[in-house]
Amino acid sequence: MDALFDSTDAVRNANPLKHACEFLYSSPVNLERGGCLSEVRITYETYGELNLRKDNAVLICHAISGDSHVAAHDELDNTGWWEIMVGPGKPIDTDKYFVICPNFLGGCRGSTGPDSINPDTGYQYGLDFPEITVGDIVEVDCLLIDSLGITRLLSVVGGSLGGVVTLEWATRFPDRVLSAIPLATAAHMTSQALAFDIVARNAILSDPNYLGGRYYEKGVIPASGLAIARMLGHITYLSRESMMKKFDSTRNQARKIETAFETKFSVGSYLAYQGGKFVERFDANSYVVLTTAIDNFDLGSTPIELQKSLKRSMCRWLILSFTTDWLFPSFLSMELVNALLATDKRVSYCDIPSECGHDGFLLPDEFEIYGEMIRSFLSNISFEVLSGGVLQLERPDRIDYEQILDLIPRGAKVLDLGCGKGGLLARLRQRSECSRVQGIEIKEKYVLRCIERGLDVVQADLNDGLHAFSDHQFDFVVLSKTLQTVRDVEFVLDEMLRVGVRGIVSFPNLGFHEHRRRLMNEGQAPKLDFDDAKEWYNTSDVRFLTLKDFEYFCSKKGINVHHCIAIDTKQQKQIDQNPNENADVVILVISK
Amino acid sequence: MDALFDSTDAVRNANPLKHACEFLYSSPVNLERGGCLSEVRITYETYGELNLRKDNAVLICHAISGDSHVAAHDELDNTGWWEIMVGPGKPIDTDKYFVICPNFLGGCRGSTGPDSINPDTGYQYGLDFPEITVGDIVEVDCLLIDSLGITRLLSVVGGSLGGVVTLEWATRFPDRVLSAIPLATAAHMTSQALAFDIVARNAILSDPNYLGGRYYEKGVIPASGLAIARMLGHITYLSRESMMKKFDSTRNQARKIETAFETKFSVGSYLAYQGGKFVERFDANSYVVLTTAIDNFDLGSTPIELQKSLKRSMCRWLILSFTTDWLFPSFLSMELVNALLATDKRVSYCDIPSECGHDGFLLPDEFEIYGEMIRSFLSNISFEVLSGGVLQLERPDRIDYEQILDLIPRGAKVLDLGCGKGGLLARLRQRSECSRVQGIEIKEKYVLRCIERGLDVVQADLNDGLHAFSDHQFDFVVLSKTLQTVRDVEFVLDEMLRVGVRGIVSFPNLGFHEHRRRLMNEGQAPKLDFDDAKEWYNTSDVRFLTLKDFEYFCSKKGINVHHCIAIDTKQQKQIDQNPNENADVVILVISK
Repeated sequence: MDALFDSTDAVRNANPLKHACEFLYSSPVNLERGGCLSEVRITYETYGELNLRKDNAVLICHAISGDSHVAAHDELDNTGWWEIMVGPGKPIDTDKYFVICPNFLGGCRGSTGPDSINPDTGYQYGLDFPEITVGDIVEVDCLLIDSLGITRLLSVVGGSLGGVVTLEWATRFPDRVLSAIPLATAAHMTSQALAFDIVARNAILSDPNYLGGRYYEKGVIPASGLAIARMLGHITYLSRESMMKKFDSTRNQARKIETAFETKFSVGSYLAYQGGKFVERFDANSYVVLTTAIDNFDLGSTPIELQKSLKRSMCRWLILSFTTDWLFPSFLSMELVNALLATDKRVSYCDIPSECGHDGFLLPDEFEIYGEMIRSFLSNISFEVLSGGVLQLERPDRIDYEQILDLIPRGAKVLDLGCGKGGLLARLRQRSECSRVQGIEIKEKYVLRCIERGLDVVQADLNDGLHAFSDHQFDFVVLSKTLQTVRDVEFVLDEMLRVGVRGIVSFPNLGFHEHRRRLMNEGQAPKLDFDDAKEWYNTSDVRFLTLKDFEYFCSKKGINVHHCIAIDTKQQKQIDQNPNENADVVILVISK
Repeated sequence: MDALFDSTDAVRNANPLKHACEFLYSSPVNLERGGCLSEVRITYETYGELNLRKDNAVLICHAISGDSHVAAHDELDNTGWWEIMVGPGKPIDTDKYFVICPNFLGGCRGSTGPDSINPDTGYQYGLDFPEITVGDIVEVDCLLIDSLGITRLLSVVGGSLGGVVTLEWATRFPDRVLSAIPLATAAHMTSQALAFDIVARNAILSDPNYLGGRYYEKGVIPASGLAIARMLGHITYLSRESMMKKFDSTRNQARKIETAFETKFSVGSYLAYQGGKFVERFDANSYVVLTTAIDNFDLGSTPIELQKSLKRSMCRWLILSFTTDWLFPSFLSMELVNALLATDKRVSYCDIPSECGHDGFLLPDEFEIYGEMIRSFLSNISFEVLSGGVLQLERPDRIDYEQILDLIPRGAKVLDLGCGKGGLLARLRQRSECSRVQGIEIKEKYVLRCIERGLDVVQADLNDGLHAFSDHQFDFVVLSKTLQTVRDVEFVLDEMLRVGVRGIVSFPNLGFHEHRRRLMNEGQAPKLDFDDAKEWYNTSDVRFLTLKDFEYFCSKKGINVHHCIAIDTKQQKQIDQNPNENADVVILVISK
């Protein structure tokens, strides 16, 4: 095929599973919705070596049409669907970790599913295959993990349906999961995504060859219906942006494909091709069974319900979404993150800027960011597990950190708003290792830096508020040299003092004598930016205030000022006399 | 049915067209793609009275599944699909305008289409119905307009496919269209939207009852395929947000519906119901014919091509998009707007904030804004046409306007960036009626105010640049009291001086003696905001600069300062001596 059909699809079109192992559980398995399977077979592949302590196992969960072949086993082997992520020296490093990837229950790649022979009848299950849930998938995969002698997984990782399975693992078997990395996923589908699944199933079920799911016996397949389901799937995996890039310039160019479907637009040729390929390798009943399982998945649709579900988890979390993913939009990842933050779980999160839509987690485009995040996160987890890890610390780059550290008692719960590269958080953690310190940062390069340092950091915009957190959830909330960059000062301070028993604010003081003189004598705007190269027209500062302005503001808003530290940073000294004139930076401890 | 099925659908589910008139054109009509129809019948409805000069006609173009029944004709009549918009005293006021709404060629509501009898054979056309284009639809509607003796339409209005037809009218018959109001539409489909149409057609074509389009003769209909097509349509008409509101809280509640489709989720019941209803009233071949026509529509996919197409138009434009419309996303309306701006057409545009998705233009939710825009726009057009209109002017509210007016010669082409309520533009227009003056404004309430005043205003964010405009397209580009609210000062000024031969900038001067003294003596941040109630923490100003800062900036960036007017606004006088100290507002004429 031409290039149009190659890029995203090599990773999604399955290979023969020649390296697959088989695990047979020959006792009956009771299912959540009342059904029962008299035996269960799970096929899976592994990579790397399980160590003696059996604590280096990483479980990878595939997406709906994926399978156990996550990567090539050797040079002769076929490429896997996550080749970029898994292998020697790659982020999920098979030189360090023992990787297990099972084919899901209900699928059609060797594990028990609708196309398997029902041992009770000797015929293929077809629609007699009982309804399964994501919980059932995890239960049988756990039997596999048991059989390998693994008590606790170093990590469970997966995107899309695989992300949902990851969420289920972390909440169903909290003590068996040390860390969880759900990508491009959600605690429940949007109604829009659900609607696409319903239309896809309707297309399959109304195909005259479907025969109520009994098509195996008649030697036919509901090819049209399954192909249409797959076409819809493909639209939802791509973003509008990536479709424009892929198809707009060649819109009217049909490709030559053997198909009964419309091919006259390039995107039509693509869909016809993808639909046709899928029919060759996937079973319609499995599509119905697995989409129904994910559609019914719901960890909680209100914040309270979701918190209740996620509170059970005991792992560290790295959650990643992709900005143009509209099948599992970023706000659903934020719902997970917010519920974890509200229940004081250790979580890092980033919304990866991407044009690739839902497929983003499979593609190389943004791999440099999300691959490194996964590599660092796993490294830190395994380092802590395997050698009782110590954090790397850089030399202090911000003199005000020491002052702020002195204001915070050891062991206090601290939220750092606009935490940057994590300098303050790393010091807090170093001082008291098991204290709960959480960062919020908007720039993804800083988020990555924090993750590399083993810190918990969530990407978010302070201007959106801190609604994830409950009242007085933290002992201290820090807003260090960030106030002047915030547009909605009142809202951010309100939120800060709601969430923290105490707030610590530092900002550059416009009242400093140098600034006053520059305006008075030179007739020029004072330069307050910490980055000396910035001018009035390109500074990221948008608020200009003196210590006196801030004190007036506090008194007007009923904010208590407990403590004020004034510093002349150039002279590296603390100021006692007339701070509004003599300090260029001030630090205040406040509460409401 | 329960409330779930009512809201958006009353307006979209067609009624018997008992008030429809019929126009028969009994000569052959040659079609753009080579086919020919030996006669054409157009059914249509009218509202109001055509005046003696026949210059008060408004043509309304329906969406793909709409029809001529745009509103009820009397109290006993069925509700129309745009009842909120059309009628006595409504925005498209049938007391003032003669409204015509034809059923499209190719449809199934009385006008010639695939289900019509082919006079050459005596059988229904079926798939023998020739391929038609949007151009063909407009050509035959123009025959209807001719037959009514109307030379020029006061306006052509339509959303979605109706918007596409509106675009075609304005560019195919420029001298017959005085104004055009395309809503929720585009010069071409996105590849994503196209893909949905392709999957919909594939569902119809692969339905075994479709019989290659010859199902009429067999007395069957491709009900499953058409229903699936319609289900997909419904998903794309709603937004993710509106689907969440409509379905999330009742997700697992099935409704009782007679259907073979899946109903177990509430959204599934909804889709099954909509699919079933549609099959009762719409013809599958029409769906294929009309979706193919819109999929092939392309006014130009590059800015240059689009400018070439739109340059032909001679009408005034009001273009409206809806923020959550993902079928015809707002950026496609912006493409139209940009091409019109680049070719110096008179255009107003607003991106209506809405949660309703593509359906936004049919629904009451945001009607207060977009209804009023359409009302005002049409009023001004008809006022100008019918009585040679004069603009209403309010009392001057900004003393700097008079100064800026003096700097601009009569008849100059002027672009006002951040034009607010249009005070300056209205004065410019009043001074010289046919001069080209265009506003850019971000707040929709100000956009509405400008439209009410008969001005041309486009909603846009200055921070996104002025890429619509060519180099030196305007004699003057004005940035009046807006510079201090702009984050990316360098970019905005660069763009301004690229597009304008001269730029006029005004801003509050931080160097003013009162501001200096406040910082020096009081130790407080100066208050520069024009709105006295605003403080350092809630002003919309984000840039603080003195006249001297700006002059340094200009010299550094190679910007010429031709003229500087310094004002003390409190004393209402111009300043000659030491402007950086004595003026609180400065106005500069600059160029690059």
